[in-house]
Amino acid sequence: MDQQHIENWLNKRKLRRTSRSVASLFDKLLKGDLVALSSCITLLESTLPADKEMANDLIQLSLPHAGKSIRIGITGVPGVGKSTFIEAFGKILVQKGMKVAVLAIDPSSSESGGSILGDKTRMQDLSVMQNVFIRPSAAGSTLGGVARKTRESIFLCEMAGFDVILIETVGVGQSETMVHSMVDFFLLLMLAGAGDELQGIKRGIMEMADALVITKADGDNEKKAQMASREYANAMHLFPPKASDWIAPSYTCSAYTNENIDKVWTTVESFSNQTKINGWFDKHRKIQDKYWLSESLKELILNDFFGDETSMNELKNMEQKVLSGEISSFHAAEILYAYYNKEK
Amino acid sequence: MDQQHIENWLNKRKLRRTSRSVASLFDKLLKGDLVALSSCITLLESTLPADKEMANDLIQLSLPHAGKSIRIGITGVPGVGKSTFIEAFGKILVQKGMKVAVLAIDPSSSESGGSILGDKTRMQDLSVMQNVFIRPSAAGSTLGGVARKTRESIFLCEMAGFDVILIETVGVGQSETMVHSMVDFFLLLMLAGAGDELQGIKRGIMEMADALVITKADGDNEKKAQMASREYANAMHLFPPKASDWIAPSYTCSAYTNENIDKVWTTVESFSNQTKINGWFDKHRKIQDKYWLSESLKELILNDFFGDETSMNELKNMEQKVLSGEISSFHAAEILYAYYNKEK
Repeated sequence: MDQQHIENWLNKRKLRRTSRSVASLFDKLLKGDLVALSSCITLLESTLPADKEMANDLIQLSLPHAGKSIRIGITGVPGVGKSTFIEAFGKILVQKGMKVAVLAIDPSSSESGGSILGDKTRMQDLSVMQNVFIRPSAAGSTLGGVARKTRESIFLCEMAGFDVILIETVGVGQSETMVHSMVDFFLLLMLAGAGDELQGIKRGIMEMADALVITKADGDNEKKAQMASREYANAMHLFPPKASDWIAPSYTCSAYTNENIDKVWTTVESFSNQTKINGWFDKHRKIQDKYWLSESLKELILNDFFGDETSMNELKNMEQKVLSGEISSFHAAEILYAYYNKEK
Repeated sequence: MDQQHIENWLNKRKLRRTSRSVASLFDKLLKGDLVALSSCITLLESTLPADKEMANDLIQLSLPHAGKSIRIGITGVPGVGKSTFIEAFGKILVQKGMKVAVLAIDPSSSESGGSILGDKTRMQDLSVMQNVFIRPSAAGSTLGGVARKTRESIFLCEMAGFDVILIETVGVGQSETMVHSMVDFFLLLMLAGAGDELQGIKRGIMEMADALVITKADGDNEKKAQMASREYANAMHLFPPKASDWIAPSYTCSAYTNENIDKVWTTVESFSNQTKINGWFDKHRKIQDKYWLSESLKELILNDFFGDETSMNELKNMEQKVLSGEISSFHAAEILYAYYNKEK
């Protein structure tokens, strides 16, 4: 065989093998195979072109099967007890006969390359249960990259038959806004007291919440938690109404005594029922679909400039000129835009 | 003379005339000439290339003289009494010996081509006072365009010696966020009652406020306004602390009895003193300079796609495919990005 023949043969073989792998993974996923689910998410996270192509194919195949779960975002400052809450909450859901997936977003974990061990250790009881899938932090260099991996992992979990997807975020940076844009219900966990504990919560997060739950309401802390809950309930009442017409409740819970953990699920159910009747549930998902299309496109386009080191140096130089009063922000932008058009 | 000679001569003449006009306008501006100020803002708003160039030159010249005023954004739902408040507030400032400029942003007014008559009629007493400059709504097809005109108008007013610049926005759309990004102090006017009146206020606006003032606290309304004020004060207390370390107060006022109108100025002064000492005042302006540079650049770059009708049709087609579950948002974005690269 000449070189051309070998190449053709190799290409065909690779192609056939790839499509066979995709078909096989897809079959396993539909049957709820957790090892296959794990492999698929690993493909999503891979930077190899062949893996990326397989991941794209899988997502393409998953779309008709996706969307059947309720997606719940869970956030709160470090120390609020997110893992403990998720463990208690997840156990109750499993006891009710549901399949529960836990995905985590932690931009800071990209350095440690994700914390599989950490996540499974944190939720020791939950992680060994049947019908539970825990996937550690999706890592990535850009917020858009992390968003894509997480959002497409949701689709894969849904294809594998999971009823509830919990997406945990650390209470810092832009990750809350991102998670809020890919879930149906956004749960904010809070500590009692309106002092220093609030420092870590980004402005605007409280308004995003569909429920505000004060954790660790047990022992000496219970009374303080009750008071905090009433204050927050009053505050939530003052916010402008949500597009969903849902009024976010505020109450206390304890993962230690299990008090009110069940109530969180009742809240999610009420939300789901109410917004499915008034049309918000579906409308919201469509808004999210459009949002991620346009956001991802913008990120790709802007990356031509903002992802380029030379361009960024030009921007930094221009910034200095703006700050020193040499040139106005808008005129500076025009000059940089002209530079961008010349370079591209 | 041949054609070339005529062209050269015309060009030189135009150039000389232009630079003479700029120098003359600049001189008049520095002397606080209100007619010159008006002409300069008109140049900013012009779409003629020659006018734009003159405007750019003027802004360039104005920069070393800009920044000396306090810039106050004022927002609230229609009906809250913004004009009445601004008239009462402006009069007090003038009585204190200050020069007061009122700029307005109303995206909806672009259809009527601005409402000079409307604005001056609304603030009848203020508009005829010495040391007062009222400029009607800056109109424009894009938010960036309106932002540029307004922000550069601020510089021109500062060059003309104005001590206080009030920027009024209608309580709808994206204009609040824009105004918030170009002022030192953001004042939110509210009506008593936490019911329907809130509907018009966009989510997140309350958290932006540096002061929350309940208007129309007179006659039968006074008690209700006091109650609302206390409720809002409690709510504001629950928000995460601001980067400025400033705690936004909440109180009532009446433009009818003049009650507490003066207190608004005391609040602005306290804010200004406190944030000049802790460094936020200057830092905030630098953040705004950088913000507008990067925002304007992004708008220019993205406009190549989002300002193009054919591209937008492609986007709409792709949106339909995403909504019908044919393709994922992220993959769709990649396809559109490839299309964009081919076209440009």
